[in-house]
Amino acid sequence: MTETLTLDEARQIWPILSVSERIEAFQSMERSAADAFFRELSADERGAIVLAQTTVERLPWLRLLQPDDAADVVQSVPARERESVLGLLDEQTRHEVIALLAYAEDEAGGLMNPRFARLRPDMTVGESLRYLERQAQEKLETIYYAYVLDHEQRLLGVVSFRELFVAAREKALKDVMHTEVVSVADTMDQEAVARVMAQRDLNALPVVDDQGRMKGIVTVDDIVDVFQQAATEDIHKLGGMAALDTGYLQTGLLAMIKKRAGWLSALFLGEMLTATAMGRYEDEIAKAVVLALFVPLIISSGGNSGSQATTLVIRAMALGEVTVQDWWRIIHREAVAGLSLGLILGSIGLVRILTWQAMFHTYGEHYKQVAATVALSLVGVVTWGTLAGSMLPFVIRRLGFDPASASAPFVATLVDVSGLVIYFNVAQLILQGSLL
Amino acid sequence: MTETLTLDEARQIWPILSVSERIEAFQSMERSAADAFFRELSADERGAIVLAQTTVERLPWLRLLQPDDAADVVQSVPARERESVLGLLDEQTRHEVIALLAYAEDEAGGLMNPRFARLRPDMTVGESLRYLERQAQEKLETIYYAYVLDHEQRLLGVVSFRELFVAAREKALKDVMHTEVVSVADTMDQEAVARVMAQRDLNALPVVDDQGRMKGIVTVDDIVDVFQQAATEDIHKLGGMAALDTGYLQTGLLAMIKKRAGWLSALFLGEMLTATAMGRYEDEIAKAVVLALFVPLIISSGGNSGSQATTLVIRAMALGEVTVQDWWRIIHREAVAGLSLGLILGSIGLVRILTWQAMFHTYGEHYKQVAATVALSLVGVVTWGTLAGSMLPFVIRRLGFDPASASAPFVATLVDVSGLVIYFNVAQLILQGSLL
Repeated sequence: MTETLTLDEARQIWPILSVSERIEAFQSMERSAADAFFRELSADERGAIVLAQTTVERLPWLRLLQPDDAADVVQSVPARERESVLGLLDEQTRHEVIALLAYAEDEAGGLMNPRFARLRPDMTVGESLRYLERQAQEKLETIYYAYVLDHEQRLLGVVSFRELFVAAREKALKDVMHTEVVSVADTMDQEAVARVMAQRDLNALPVVDDQGRMKGIVTVDDIVDVFQQAATEDIHKLGGMAALDTGYLQTGLLAMIKKRAGWLSALFLGEMLTATAMGRYEDEIAKAVVLALFVPLIISSGGNSGSQATTLVIRAMALGEVTVQDWWRIIHREAVAGLSLGLILGSIGLVRILTWQAMFHTYGEHYKQVAATVALSLVGVVTWGTLAGSMLPFVIRRLGFDPASASAPFVATLVDVSGLVIYFNVAQLILQGSLL
Repeated sequence: MTETLTLDEARQIWPILSVSERIEAFQSMERSAADAFFRELSADERGAIVLAQTTVERLPWLRLLQPDDAADVVQSVPARERESVLGLLDEQTRHEVIALLAYAEDEAGGLMNPRFARLRPDMTVGESLRYLERQAQEKLETIYYAYVLDHEQRLLGVVSFRELFVAAREKALKDVMHTEVVSVADTMDQEAVARVMAQRDLNALPVVDDQGRMKGIVTVDDIVDVFQQAATEDIHKLGGMAALDTGYLQTGLLAMIKKRAGWLSALFLGEMLTATAMGRYEDEIAKAVVLALFVPLIISSGGNSGSQATTLVIRAMALGEVTVQDWWRIIHREAVAGLSLGLILGSIGLVRILTWQAMFHTYGEHYKQVAATVALSLVGVVTWGTLAGSMLPFVIRRLGFDPASASAPFVATLVDVSGLVIYFNVAQLILQGSLL
């Protein structure tokens, strides 16, 4: 890779390169292309590239970045390298970055840019425009939303550039600005910030501290990443594993196995209870082997219906459609849904056994009781699986954990054990005196 | 609900209201609050409110909307109402909406706003600013990105308002604009559009037709919804059901049961093969009932490891990290991961059986062979489950379906049947001559 790489070529091969190949590719680009490409990278990728270069080469790269992006890069490098990376920044940016690093990465404060357009309430529209024209030369996140602050930096109002631009120049800013401003606290969780922004259809949100002083601005492009990351984490958890911190192909094999082995082993230990449960019914199985044949069918039906319910509830929670207070409404809905789905599967099961019996005489003389056992168990297991799946996210959230940990495999494991108990108890009830 | 509802009150109670209560709530709001609230609603909600009002009342609501939003409302109402809703629009908007309706909802053309800021290449910066000032009074999506078009509406360049604002007024626009413009085709899928925008960190993207003529603009706030919708659909599918079209609490109970019953029944029919498979080993189970005890443990381990693998691959595909060409790299990674995970679970299983045997003498005189059967089957089933789970999304995409249909329950069902075959074959091999 000694020839010069263009921007488009770099974009194309990037996903399949290893870290060291990426740095090599980066160094083979022309300066303007490399600048543009650097802006498209994630914080981890930027950090790796900055670290791989000599101290002199590092200087210009970081200076391309806004303070919030620079803070993300500082956070992405190993702790022992942080001081030296901070040292690459100019003094103003360094101070801003250090202030940002005081916030947790997933708080509004960790997401915001402290460089926003400021105006004073006693300005006219004309003065405001001239003032913004001067500020536009600096490295502000955006000049398209300007915030009107008093002497203590408290937020008085907001005005869009467009509103200023079309207003009469001699008008007072006070009469143009909006005073009912939606703002978020600097300690608010970033997913909550993203939801406020999406629900209100806003392009920018001011972030204020507990004194009402404006500290920064979050823009809509920031929340795209927040939503994507949050969805990826939830999807990984729903798949029954710890969320990966980096992309699938970027994650080392060992790190990935670790992320998966933890939950898989925990689920395995839980699932061992099925062997214990089955052990308690060993005599029944010995007497009526036919019962064993339907075990996978019955427990998987409970698991599948539970997986549907838990997935629906977790996503609705993530989107803010459902809150903890809604559990009572949901248990009602899911009870009806679970019973209906159980009746559907029970009927299919009944038809299946009676058909096979008529065609192949598979299930012996007591086939009617066997069919009744299977059908009735399905109704019970599916109803129970649906209820358990829908309520587990609430229980987990109540315990202080992330509801997305109520993964499909977790619910399936839970329902497998209880499903077996339901099945064999129904069997004892119906088959007593015939097969058992 | 006869008293006047404020904007904040409306936002709070909104999620728990039925459709008819929503319309009532809406009508009880003051006009300015109702205006603001109307802008925050989804197309479906807007459509329902417009339809519920008399023709005279309807007029002002729709006129608040940009053509792309108005088109979404038209699409959300029943076909027989579309003409009457279109009739509420002013002539220019009606023409724009009809042009947008020609595109599929999930194409760039169905997402874009046709009202964008246009400039001519022979203007100066000063003329451009004055021209934008005039355009800013109209209902444009944004004036912050202006597109330079030739006489045939072909896209020549782009310039941000901020760049114009800080440039010398007498400069030629040609010398300020960027000519390397990232644009998307009007027929491009909206998720692909969203990915281009997120990867390039852009705030707006021009949409062009196959002649290179610019037709509209997509802004970053549009793609937030695209990503959220796409993630919700994928999550629902991964949970083993058809994606809901509306929110969980907004979806009627019957509609929801339908969405769930389809996949659940299909999975149930597939899972019936386990009963057939078990039936083939009925004699073995009768001879060695102990084998039946581990059936749930073994098949669920295969299902769980398959669920992890399929979830990872599907999300990586949705984020554009993994494409169809990568299947060979992935099969290698997953083979190693699957074998490692299988060895971990196999070891835990071995320890479990030997411990229980030492403590409770549960598994009879041939416990060593039983333990070996279970451990070896786990290695095989987990490796196979992982491979099958990682490859299923590729197979499904190859067949032309959405890879997210390779849900955790689907993979589990697939692996259950093959897992049983692996287990009983390993058992025959090891237990031949002792238990069997």
